[in-house]
Amino acid sequence: MSAPLKVGLAGLGNVGAGVAKVLRGDTRLLAWRAGRDIAITAVSARDRTRDRGVDLDGVRFEADPMALARRDDVDVIVELMGGHEGAARTLVEAALRARKHVVTANKALLAYHGAALAELAERSGVSLKFEAAICGGIPIVKALRESLIAYEISAVRGILNGTCNFILTQMEASGRPFAEVLSEAQRLGYAEADPTLDIGGGDTAHKLTLLAALAFGTVPDLGGVTVTGIEKVSPADIAFAAEFGYRLKLLGVARKTPSGIEQRVHPAMVKARTPLADVESSFNAVAADAGAAGPFFFEGRGAGSGPTTSAVIADLVDVARGAFGPAFGRPASELTAPKRVPAETRSSAYYLRFQVLDVPGVMAEISRHLANEQVSIESMIQRGRAPGEPVAIVMITHESSHVAVVRALSAIATSDKVFEAPCMIPMETA
Amino acid sequence: MSAPLKVGLAGLGNVGAGVAKVLRGDTRLLAWRAGRDIAITAVSARDRTRDRGVDLDGVRFEADPMALARRDDVDVIVELMGGHEGAARTLVEAALRARKHVVTANKALLAYHGAALAELAERSGVSLKFEAAICGGIPIVKALRESLIAYEISAVRGILNGTCNFILTQMEASGRPFAEVLSEAQRLGYAEADPTLDIGGGDTAHKLTLLAALAFGTVPDLGGVTVTGIEKVSPADIAFAAEFGYRLKLLGVARKTPSGIEQRVHPAMVKARTPLADVESSFNAVAADAGAAGPFFFEGRGAGSGPTTSAVIADLVDVARGAFGPAFGRPASELTAPKRVPAETRSSAYYLRFQVLDVPGVMAEISRHLANEQVSIESMIQRGRAPGEPVAIVMITHESSHVAVVRALSAIATSDKVFEAPCMIPMETA
Repeated sequence: MSAPLKVGLAGLGNVGAGVAKVLRGDTRLLAWRAGRDIAITAVSARDRTRDRGVDLDGVRFEADPMALARRDDVDVIVELMGGHEGAARTLVEAALRARKHVVTANKALLAYHGAALAELAERSGVSLKFEAAICGGIPIVKALRESLIAYEISAVRGILNGTCNFILTQMEASGRPFAEVLSEAQRLGYAEADPTLDIGGGDTAHKLTLLAALAFGTVPDLGGVTVTGIEKVSPADIAFAAEFGYRLKLLGVARKTPSGIEQRVHPAMVKARTPLADVESSFNAVAADAGAAGPFFFEGRGAGSGPTTSAVIADLVDVARGAFGPAFGRPASELTAPKRVPAETRSSAYYLRFQVLDVPGVMAEISRHLANEQVSIESMIQRGRAPGEPVAIVMITHESSHVAVVRALSAIATSDKVFEAPCMIPMETA
Repeated sequence: MSAPLKVGLAGLGNVGAGVAKVLRGDTRLLAWRAGRDIAITAVSARDRTRDRGVDLDGVRFEADPMALARRDDVDVIVELMGGHEGAARTLVEAALRARKHVVTANKALLAYHGAALAELAERSGVSLKFEAAICGGIPIVKALRESLIAYEISAVRGILNGTCNFILTQMEASGRPFAEVLSEAQRLGYAEADPTLDIGGGDTAHKLTLLAALAFGTVPDLGGVTVTGIEKVSPADIAFAAEFGYRLKLLGVARKTPSGIEQRVHPAMVKARTPLADVESSFNAVAADAGAAGPFFFEGRGAGSGPTTSAVIADLVDVARGAFGPAFGRPASELTAPKRVPAETRSSAYYLRFQVLDVPGVMAEISRHLANEQVSIESMIQRGRAPGEPVAIVMITHESSHVAVVRALSAIATSDKVFEAPCMIPMETA
């Protein structure tokens, strides 16, 4: 067996402690797979003294993570600090320049700087691996980079944020409003104190750009993602979705179209009893359309110590075996800048909900505005409650131009019989 | 870039032609991933002249597949002939001895001779890869060998045979009996002229032993699998399953238990709206319990040219990159002989169906025999039709010892009020 692979671990939170525990435990099985031992030689963390339930005797502690990149007894840096600028970026760049491999769980860093870092890794002849950055333990990076490679991938769709899926699942089960369920999720540790990046869709967008880059060979293009979060999802929409045979999910979708690469994050109506619709609680999942190889579906835990540790360990074993190609599956110089598809040129079937005054003529008025924009209705639910009181009119359109629907809704919103801004949610039927 | 990887292709059926088409097409993307070109230099097939829609100009044709293993211009043999003895086995052994890598889709060959072939590959310092042998394009071999490796896997469950799942899905949708649906499947090409290996569960057993070997580090142990096929599944059981909130699926289950490794193939009741229950038509799927990394679920097309080609190509790229460890994830000498769990020691909840004469006392008789064996009933459906006529009594038991239920059913079967042998199907609740 060759010399051990020497690991410098930057970050000792839940995941860092999980990685340390696995590597300080019985590593015989890993060594068999890797062809050599894998050993932690140095760690860095904010707090040296905290008890993390793992024995780090004999492992060098560095107060400054940057020191890890300078150590001769470190072959690979595991970066678990997070953040797309600051210490994480500086460390990863320094490590790659010093010809050390990098394994990271940092989706934001790669979404912003993925192409440049991939190029740096290539120039240094080392690997940049990030299985843990997308969907925790689900081996979707490996699948896209190494398995679904015989045919062109036309689309990738995913439930990429466990916090959002947990909240939507809870709203569905309890009928309670978003804000209440979010507070509960924060209490339970499913949502962070500042939940903006999760519920606003930003985290999903980070992961989506990486999936798109792997699937299509494009530069991660965060600026090309249109993003709508789940903050405005109402229990009413979730309940109406069920009546139509759909579930409401926050999806990340990246699709090849004749006019370019479409990347979008938004709440979507997903047909019930299809794999993505059935994803429960904080689970993550990815569906990929891989041409002649057919559709694939992968589901698992998207976050947490165990799943993320599992992905980091798999990457380390690949590095130890010397089994790595280019970070995004092709040389960094061959990654193409994706042609963006403007949101205005898109079309879809849409779920629409109007809060209206239950008076004669309101339906005629809505219908007229939709017809003016060539938006036709596929199915509709209207339940009169008390005449003269607010009532919901809910419909699903046939495939329609995005801008046409937006124009129709603007016109409808001006009516004095319509309360609130109309709600518009794309149907994801493919 | 290094010299091209030179491929000898044995078998030019649908999959062989698919592999040839990909490798004779634009291979630039594959070369980027592999770090070098991959080129077919020689092929072997029964019929040289058939038009397969692929240009093989300049590729050497060998009438005898064994000749591929002797050619200096072949680095890797792709074995797509099938069969666990005869030409396929001889070729694979000769190739490994001649220090040629082997990529195969042959589940039977590996189920019977996997450990010996893995050892042979190791001695020769070459790879033995078989992603295409289990679930077509689903990268489950890679996932078990390279990704879900940080924690111990406790169980693997799968829908591993597309023919069976197609037949069961059709029976459910149409209410038609097994034999009729099988004939239709044969007409449509979903079932072979001799369907024994599929519908009898043998093919599922082959794949299950390989999953178990990868998951648990055991020698593939085909003799340790208890196998029941789908031949006796009746539309009535499928319909009753739905009433109880279950779907009937042919599962392969491999599980670590305190008394050893349990491996079984049988029709099972799977809770509706769980990932495995939702697998439709000819799709395949695998669920793995990976300890702290949580449960994983993988779904895709399990057979056909595109999916299988996809798996073969992925293996070839790994071979070209030099990215391979031991065939089953640990040295062949470290694969352990699994301790078999005898079927008699198992326990489960069971679905039971009795065809009885609708007369007073019949339910009392059945209940008494079940109670005598300590088998208690969780829920029951009885629909009286015409008094004095045959009627079904259907129930689900609490978790019970397998042998106790079998004894109770034997006693019940002797009653003159009971027609047919009672039906007994395990519930798969985990």
